[in-house]
Amino acid sequence: MSVLVPRGFVASGVAAGIKAEGGLDLALVASESSRPLASAGVFTANLAAAAPVQVCRQHLVRSGGMTAAVVVNSGCANAATGAQGIDTAERTCELAAAGLAVASEQVLVCSTGTIGPQLDPAKLAAALPGLIGSRGRSEACAVAAAQAMLTTDTAPKQVVIHSEGFVVGGTAKGAAMLAPNMATMLALLTTDAAAPPDVLRPALLAAVRGSFNEMTVDGCMSTNDSVIVLASGLGREASEDALTEAFGAACADLAEQMVADAEGGTKVVRVVVTGALDSDSARRGARRVCESQLVKSSWYGEDANWGRLVSELGSAGIAFDPACVEISYGGVTVCRDGVAVDHDAAALAAVLAAKRIEVVCELNLGPGSASMLSADLTPAYVELNMGRS
Amino acid sequence: MSVLVPRGFVASGVAAGIKAEGGLDLALVASESSRPLASAGVFTANLAAAAPVQVCRQHLVRSGGMTAAVVVNSGCANAATGAQGIDTAERTCELAAAGLAVASEQVLVCSTGTIGPQLDPAKLAAALPGLIGSRGRSEACAVAAAQAMLTTDTAPKQVVIHSEGFVVGGTAKGAAMLAPNMATMLALLTTDAAAPPDVLRPALLAAVRGSFNEMTVDGCMSTNDSVIVLASGLGREASEDALTEAFGAACADLAEQMVADAEGGTKVVRVVVTGALDSDSARRGARRVCESQLVKSSWYGEDANWGRLVSELGSAGIAFDPACVEISYGGVTVCRDGVAVDHDAAALAAVLAAKRIEVVCELNLGPGSASMLSADLTPAYVELNMGRS
Repeated sequence: MSVLVPRGFVASGVAAGIKAEGGLDLALVASESSRPLASAGVFTANLAAAAPVQVCRQHLVRSGGMTAAVVVNSGCANAATGAQGIDTAERTCELAAAGLAVASEQVLVCSTGTIGPQLDPAKLAAALPGLIGSRGRSEACAVAAAQAMLTTDTAPKQVVIHSEGFVVGGTAKGAAMLAPNMATMLALLTTDAAAPPDVLRPALLAAVRGSFNEMTVDGCMSTNDSVIVLASGLGREASEDALTEAFGAACADLAEQMVADAEGGTKVVRVVVTGALDSDSARRGARRVCESQLVKSSWYGEDANWGRLVSELGSAGIAFDPACVEISYGGVTVCRDGVAVDHDAAALAAVLAAKRIEVVCELNLGPGSASMLSADLTPAYVELNMGRS
Repeated sequence: MSVLVPRGFVASGVAAGIKAEGGLDLALVASESSRPLASAGVFTANLAAAAPVQVCRQHLVRSGGMTAAVVVNSGCANAATGAQGIDTAERTCELAAAGLAVASEQVLVCSTGTIGPQLDPAKLAAALPGLIGSRGRSEACAVAAAQAMLTTDTAPKQVVIHSEGFVVGGTAKGAAMLAPNMATMLALLTTDAAAPPDVLRPALLAAVRGSFNEMTVDGCMSTNDSVIVLASGLGREASEDALTEAFGAACADLAEQMVADAEGGTKVVRVVVTGALDSDSARRGARRVCESQLVKSSWYGEDANWGRLVSELGSAGIAFDPACVEISYGGVTVCRDGVAVDHDAAALAAVLAAKRIEVVCELNLGPGSASMLSADLTPAYVELNMGRS
């Protein structure tokens, strides 16, 4: 159910013929009453931001953060599509707005799929009436919307967080081109909390910073990253802190689901760097480790290969003294003071064989710490990404 | 012959039992007369620099840049080995120096292989007399030395550059953990040019900057990168400019051989970024493209996928306007003004099917340009690097 658990929302999903292989590829999450709701969005920092991202940014400004619906298509990113791509994204909003009797800037749009090809406006125009007409509050509606957002994901990602007096629901997609800022993906959150856009926005930003921006599958920053929240206001009034906590929990859960479903991935690895000079250094060190092809390949092989981690930390551009570093996998210390230490090989093998692995790199230099979620690099990742996609 | 083409050098290679799989793993390149020669070295910027790198830096200072011999072992990086690793590297130099009747700081040492394990000093002590005793000027000696440096390389890398009045020879190894600064590898150059250490050093630095530092296989910076040149002085006196040019040609040739022999690689791809705001921006853009798992996977699949290049350039942290970018593969323009353009699909397929591919990304923003040499990412890369190595 996810996005329909909070009161005040409807959803739907249809097949618009955008995905070459067919299937659901157009989703709607909207205000049940069609009345525009308080909303906020956080988008990719990529300078080659896709047309829908550019349109969302403008619409949120023009609407004062009041949004009645979000339309999402998969199968085409509508990125690197120039003025024609912007026209298509705007036209999508206009058609949806007409169907819902709201202003077009009160509709947001997200796209995910291949970069480069134009999104066919005729397919959207043909499918939007059915998408709007089939919207509802049933489980089937929620599942159809979640399914229609997916690309190479093997399963929908959904979450529900119950907080004090309000609920947050979320659905997301993301399998490759996953890295901050933001973790490349689309996520829609709904909540029945009552809060204005200027409270939602900082809460969402903080939530994204501590979740999606702390994961990296392949270090590639998408052109289409979008996280959007709509708040129906049917529940209790919520403070920025309470929203930050609930959004953060929802985003962290969705981020974990994304990494667990990473393209070709077999492992979910959390790299924790502690004892760095400061938290920024810790973050850069953790990211360098998580984005190393050599380290990621060794995770796939269930090989601790801590020497590669030392090498990555030493070349991360942060303060680092190899004589101080300690590295542990799941509590099994394999390196202390920068050199190998005897350890229980059977215990280490058991840690590395698990689906979820935690690596701690203690730099012993200062108070900085950070954590980053990542996946292994596998032959399947390469095979999934070698062809036209 | 490579390093023995310039006059004044001897070489040898033996099996010291360091490589678990057996085979040649200990190499010597030395002054034929044992008289110390003018020399220079450039080493990794990794803060976790291996013991032999630390020892080389000290020896070059203590000897005033005068070196009689370089000892290289494969099969163990002697990195992340603490004080014991330093002792082993120093002991290696002492034993070689005693055999050659020179001072220990006139011997340099390089190691390549797995990071973490200790290098066994007993194996070195047992093998060094044979290594020194078998040194000579025959082709067999040169080949044995080149072979003994290799790890996962499939072939030795050798080069000879004939310059005005002097010759430069070189041999190198490098297959993975290849990225600036420096392109992770070992390279030994010899020359019969006459030039003091303070002329050799800037010439070597400039040569490395324009060759090894402009290639990246996997973005991983090794703990052991070393490029060393010895000059016998038996030929004509050479200017810094002449040496820079000859060393640059030798290093560029060896760099190309390394990328062509990249672990699991099937392609050698040169990415040229032009029209960047400045040359540093161009270099960062080219590196971002070359280190993208998604882009490298698409090269393996012979898929132009220019949208991924636009996305990487847009997230490289450099000035970038998607509306201005033009991307060509081997002269076939696939993207102009940031959007797809019609092109000859058969011509593009032919370009992508070749072993060597050139991609030009014209940013149309300024005068900055740079070039970076890279390889594709393949399932074989992951398989080669997933186990203990």
